[in-house]
Amino acid sequence: MKSKADIRMRGFLKRTPVKTLLALIREHSRLLSSEDILTLEASGRILAKDIISPVNVPNFDRSAMDGYALDAESTFGASTYNPLMFNVVGQVTPGETYDAVIQTGEALRIMTGGPLPTGANAVLMAEHAELTGDQIQVLEAVPPGKHVSQIGEDIQKDQTLLKQGRCLRPQDIAVLASVGLKKIKVVRKPEVELLITGNELLKPGEQAGGVKIIDSNSVMLAPLIERDGGVLKDIQHLPDDRDLLRKHLSQSSADLICMTGGTSVGIEDHGPTLVDELGELLVHGIPMRPAAPTGFGLITGSSDGNMKKVFLLPGNPVSCLSAYDYFVGRSLRLMGGRSEDWPYRTKMVKLATKISSQIGRIEYVRLRIENERAFFIAAGGASILSSTTQADGFLLTEEESEGFAEGEEVQVWLYDA
Amino acid sequence: MKSKADIRMRGFLKRTPVKTLLALIREHSRLLSSEDILTLEASGRILAKDIISPVNVPNFDRSAMDGYALDAESTFGASTYNPLMFNVVGQVTPGETYDAVIQTGEALRIMTGGPLPTGANAVLMAEHAELTGDQIQVLEAVPPGKHVSQIGEDIQKDQTLLKQGRCLRPQDIAVLASVGLKKIKVVRKPEVELLITGNELLKPGEQAGGVKIIDSNSVMLAPLIERDGGVLKDIQHLPDDRDLLRKHLSQSSADLICMTGGTSVGIEDHGPTLVDELGELLVHGIPMRPAAPTGFGLITGSSDGNMKKVFLLPGNPVSCLSAYDYFVGRSLRLMGGRSEDWPYRTKMVKLATKISSQIGRIEYVRLRIENERAFFIAAGGASILSSTTQADGFLLTEEESEGFAEGEEVQVWLYDA
Repeated sequence: MKSKADIRMRGFLKRTPVKTLLALIREHSRLLSSEDILTLEASGRILAKDIISPVNVPNFDRSAMDGYALDAESTFGASTYNPLMFNVVGQVTPGETYDAVIQTGEALRIMTGGPLPTGANAVLMAEHAELTGDQIQVLEAVPPGKHVSQIGEDIQKDQTLLKQGRCLRPQDIAVLASVGLKKIKVVRKPEVELLITGNELLKPGEQAGGVKIIDSNSVMLAPLIERDGGVLKDIQHLPDDRDLLRKHLSQSSADLICMTGGTSVGIEDHGPTLVDELGELLVHGIPMRPAAPTGFGLITGSSDGNMKKVFLLPGNPVSCLSAYDYFVGRSLRLMGGRSEDWPYRTKMVKLATKISSQIGRIEYVRLRIENERAFFIAAGGASILSSTTQADGFLLTEEESEGFAEGEEVQVWLYDA
Repeated sequence: MKSKADIRMRGFLKRTPVKTLLALIREHSRLLSSEDILTLEASGRILAKDIISPVNVPNFDRSAMDGYALDAESTFGASTYNPLMFNVVGQVTPGETYDAVIQTGEALRIMTGGPLPTGANAVLMAEHAELTGDQIQVLEAVPPGKHVSQIGEDIQKDQTLLKQGRCLRPQDIAVLASVGLKKIKVVRKPEVELLITGNELLKPGEQAGGVKIIDSNSVMLAPLIERDGGVLKDIQHLPDDRDLLRKHLSQSSADLICMTGGTSVGIEDHGPTLVDELGELLVHGIPMRPAAPTGFGLITGSSDGNMKKVFLLPGNPVSCLSAYDYFVGRSLRLMGGRSEDWPYRTKMVKLATKISSQIGRIEYVRLRIENERAFFIAAGGASILSSTTQADGFLLTEEESEGFAEGEEVQVWLYDA
């Protein structure tokens, strides 16, 4: 054990500016290593390497129309005054081949996508040819290449298809599949472990009663972690038992641990002192309301040998939501190679009420939007989770601001995507 | 077999206006029935019934601060000139109870979240009390209710928590878990089956070669179906074999079938005639490019006894993408109780190039955005899937428009969320 002063005693005398915490998160949330996954399962994942096409698509000349494949030069001179007759020697549909060589004066019936036979270099649209028996009358000349999808028209061999860092769209993985790439390298998903602490907590699904309350934070954090590209490896519900918490913090192989509860400066608040003891507590206490007792630190020993990031999140659900959203989600997105920006849409709305904020403090304000005006939700305590379900979105006041006047236009982050 | 004229012969002589197709989709994409699922897994799902809270949250008075629980009236008159002494009779932390009754002149040390003992009706903040031995000096009077979270402060019993039709947020399911609801009723996800047809197709992951090409449509459609709240039950890769296709179309119990390929008016295009034979082909051929051969029909026999919706999607990947996105996704979202609107963000951008469009036709135009200007992607054929990976987004021209002039400001739908 190191001999450090008990940081609980230091309390929140020195709060870390939110900007500093964000800078520390950026510094320590480095891009993770890559992993090979099936292309079929890669939608939404982040590409870890440029993709060079190994093949041409299409890899044969094919017809872009239903019509007749023929040698273009043999149609030169054809017109309504001088129709030329061609013998229809057969038919080819997509997936088939026609093995003979097309001669001058011959045409092969071809369907869209069908491979052009040797000897043919153009397709005459069905509408422009008159079929009589096994002959067609060609009424206009066809230039070479007409209605032919050339080799490599969609994708050329050795072309860079997609760049490293790309968040793969459904059509991207379709392109990767079409060039025959079964697997691709993507950025590994950050692994997260949740330590939900508190003697007063029941697990979700347990019968509530007496003075116990049901943990709702794990229920809320799970889909948020998924949204931010993380993978939730484990949820532990733990009592306020220092040795047990130490064991979980030190033994976890996750990239990031969220500990909820026990993060403040009370006697049962083991989070900050444990992180300090096992590693480095970089931040404890920020000028943000709610979420003031938020902490951030590093402990050795994630699965890839890097430092585990530990976020201490307040147990109060609104504090937990805002601290996760402002700090943890950002860390996960950065580790996973995504934009650190919030995945919420914004909207400019006029305030129907005044919003006061203390200078030096950032406030997470929940708002209801009605008729294009934003109403402050009064039931705004840190424990009132229902305020975030009644709200349409939220805003953050600026540290150096006293708030907003009634009628002022503000940017609201909308909870619904 | 019904004796209908072969609708292939009718061809596309009569194209259905896109507005009519959209109206038909709305008419036939009714809200599905509900199912019970675990609250823990309900983020992003659509609530099928209003939720009434069965309990109060909290269901006991609890402290909102670290401090001392006491009887407020017994502090009346306290001030720095007249400090009052209280005996600290014990301590209570969250999840514990203190069984004795607090008497006048007594205080109980209490942690945030701890249940208020009988006899106490207020909490004095730790900072406002001076502890000496087992006594505290109270320097100011505390009003009743101070720093107490009352029963039902967050949620009241019998309160409507969330309304039917709500797309559940992470914090919503947290609230539902906190009132002890293990399971909830949500709208069933529409079940989708993909029939990928074409003799020329290889399954994704197979080795490409010769005149066969790899099916990329199924790869692209799978994540889009998931995005739109559907569940992909089955993907069948089938040759252009009429009997086999008939068997799959009639036996499927999905809510919606997407058939790709074989949807046009060629001899191998069995889709339209089969839907006509097995049910009702409502639409075949629309004035939209690409995606002109899109079809929509109904066949009896989805799992819930309703008509199966059948969408005929062109095999060309860009056509397939635009037809899925404009029509199928909408149908899925409506059946699942979601907004029919596109889940893409929009952006107003100035056009760097002129875009021509034929009057009477809607064009799906792919655009690259650079320095806030939108560039038309020239390689725009229906088979050039890579055009949708090079593009940042797309726009749709209006049926009655000739296109847009250079410099005109247009609304672009962004592929990336």
